Amino acid sequence: MSVTTPRGFVAAGIACGIKESGAPDLALVATDDGRPVTAAAVFTSNLATAAPVQVSRAHLQATDHRAAAVVLSSGNANAATGEQGRADAERMCELVAADLGCDATHVLVCSTGLIGIPLPMKPIELGIPQLTAARAPDGGPQAARAIMTTDTHAKEVVVNGPGFTVGGLAKGAAMLAPNMATMLAVLTTDAEVEQPALQHALQQAVGTSFNALSVDGCTSTNDTVIVLASGRAGPPAVPHAFEEALAAACANLAGQMAGDAEGATKVVRIWITGAASDAEAAIAARKVAESQLVKCSFYGQDPYWGRVISELGSAGIAFEPDKVRVSYGGIAVCENGIAVDHDAATVAAHMAQRNIELVADLGLGAGKGTILTNDLTHAYIDENMGTS
Amino acid sequence: MSVTTPRGFVAAGIACGIKESGAPDLALVATDDGRPVTAAAVFTSNLATAAPVQVSRAHLQATDHRAAAVVLSSGNANAATGEQGRADAERMCELVAADLGCDATHVLVCSTGLIGIPLPMKPIELGIPQLTAARAPDGGPQAARAIMTTDTHAKEVVVNGPGFTVGGLAKGAAMLAPNMATMLAVLTTDAEVEQPALQHALQQAVGTSFNALSVDGCTSTNDTVIVLASGRAGPPAVPHAFEEALAAACANLAGQMAGDAEGATKVVRIWITGAASDAEAAIAARKVAESQLVKCSFYGQDPYWGRVISELGSAGIAFEPDKVRVSYGGIAVCENGIAVDHDAATVAAHMAQRNIELVADLGLGAGKGTILTNDLTHAYIDENMGTS
Repeated sequence: MSVTTPRGFVAAGIACGIKESGAPDLALVATDDGRPVTAAAVFTSNLATAAPVQVSRAHLQATDHRAAAVVLSSGNANAATGEQGRADAERMCELVAADLGCDATHVLVCSTGLIGIPLPMKPIELGIPQLTAARAPDGGPQAARAIMTTDTHAKEVVVNGPGFTVGGLAKGAAMLAPNMATMLAVLTTDAEVEQPALQHALQQAVGTSFNALSVDGCTSTNDTVIVLASGRAGPPAVPHAFEEALAAACANLAGQMAGDAEGATKVVRIWITGAASDAEAAIAARKVAESQLVKCSFYGQDPYWGRVISELGSAGIAFEPDKVRVSYGGIAVCENGIAVDHDAATVAAHMAQRNIELVADLGLGAGKGTILTNDLTHAYIDENMGTS
Repeated sequence: MSVTTPRGFVAAGIACGIKESGAPDLALVATDDGRPVTAAAVFTSNLATAAPVQVSRAHLQATDHRAAAVVLSSGNANAATGEQGRADAERMCELVAADLGCDATHVLVCSTGLIGIPLPMKPIELGIPQLTAARAPDGGPQAARAIMTTDTHAKEVVVNGPGFTVGGLAKGAAMLAPNMATMLAVLTTDAEVEQPALQHALQQAVGTSFNALSVDGCTSTNDTVIVLASGRAGPPAVPHAFEEALAAACANLAGQMAGDAEGATKVVRIWITGAASDAEAAIAARKVAESQLVKCSFYGQDPYWGRVISELGSAGIAFEPDKVRVSYGGIAVCENGIAVDHDAATVAAHMAQRNIELVADLGLGAGKGTILTNDLTHAYIDENMGTS
């Protein structure tokens, strides 16, 4: 099912008129009794934080990290909107809180869409009462649909742990980059987890999922991942089971994002092995993933390993060209830094698939790292040429 | 005129058959008497240096920075080619030296083109005698044409100083990025300049020209800028005149590269002002210039300042969103971090031009920096989808 599969949650999604298209654009995930539960969040590292990020961060601090609801809007990011933007984000929380019977600080808020345009508050003010009235135990899919922007399909996940469940919804189609780009995710669980452990588990899960994903190297002003823990299932009986389930849920949502990236025709898993350290491997993986030239090669289904080597050489890490090995789909095309004979037909068949695997072994140490990325396509440019 | 305008130089360019198209692909710039003169060079910062870079660097060290000729080939980068690649680059120098009557270490070598494919030595060995035989005082334009890859036109420059001249030729159309990407430039002068001063002047000139240019954020394995000083005009009479002329020549060639970048429809001058320091301004300028999303906006002629702010916020520099001002063509579209009323028609007219100017003032300090860049277009992707 969805974000409402764990016990204790309801959700809703409606169209209130932020989007001119009339598509759904307002979503809610809330506790079923309107009472706050333990919450944790990870926000964008961008210093130009959008108003909803500022407000959600302040609310979590004011409540010692407890929340009863998350309200999400799509079509307008409420970013670079100054004082008015903060007031508008606060107003969204107040309206939701009034309907749920909780304090406004127990409501968190997320927005996604265009930057620099004041939020259209009229439709939102009229929409929130409809949204809260529509909240239901089967409202997850509607909520997931209402946070989509350029996504082509809604993204939901459920992971069953021993005696508890983790559910989630997310959106994200471009700007998936250094440290979580334009992506929103709300996760829920009925496991009972103390706040510090919940925060730690979320940070770990984000590090291996949303932060190991790069579509275009841009970091958004609005990125937010929130988890709410109702505690209805009691504490997890198996050690680390909750951490693993949360990480699996985030990884699943991140995979869905990579598969639905703007204009992408390829989902590429890049592995860097043999680096001097894991940290250097991660830097190298990102450098390769964010290279326009390498991305164009993926689109052209061209195993042009020379560009990969060029990126590795300029990644600012320990690198000895004569030790590197590059393979596509398990077939080495370069060893000791130079071309090797290989089965070109098998490599071509691999490059023609939707899912491509590229491994670069630096031959220096035990460091390894991975990143999920996409190709750079005509359709990506079409989607990003204008604001409209 | 060209690289042969300064007294003491000859040049040539021929088609030897490296390129399947039959286009010119072998070039020479040499002293007119085959004797070595003072030389200086700046090479790529990429650790995966191509064989010709390794060989040229070794020759300059061996000769205490004196050179009689530069031989350049296009169509194949002789990069990621290992021991064989180094032997091939050495062989090119030996063949030229034999014809000119100088030592092989007095010949420098540059190559540009595809990475990872052994250099086709047969056509080069047959071509070099023709190339050296063709060298002439009016051979500059032929040489400039013979180093083109995806360039659509040859790039030459002459700057007249008081009593001396600086000439140059260059190629470079993509991968113009952090620290000089796939670009080659050979400059000549008849000014008499001591080697340390020549090296210093070149590094300064590169810093404000080729290194302040970014097409796609990729740094090549082959970048090389070489200057040869024949001394025929004696020492410059006016202090700093040589440094200024060399910087002007490099800036002119860099401007030609930006104007001829792969698939570009726009040449964009980005200024960052009001930064905490010049260093932070330079980082910010590069971050904005290398953003796929911002580049798509230029292509779409869209003054989408929200993306600029998002990049500034994630540039890793001191940044306060509420202090930033963004303008296109001198018209502010954002002040204090939010949208301001502006003459949209005038901004639209500016965005429709080939040359766009974007200024982001951070409102924090006196730091400023600039970079020249391009838009990201369908044609860029077409050119980079495959190796062929």
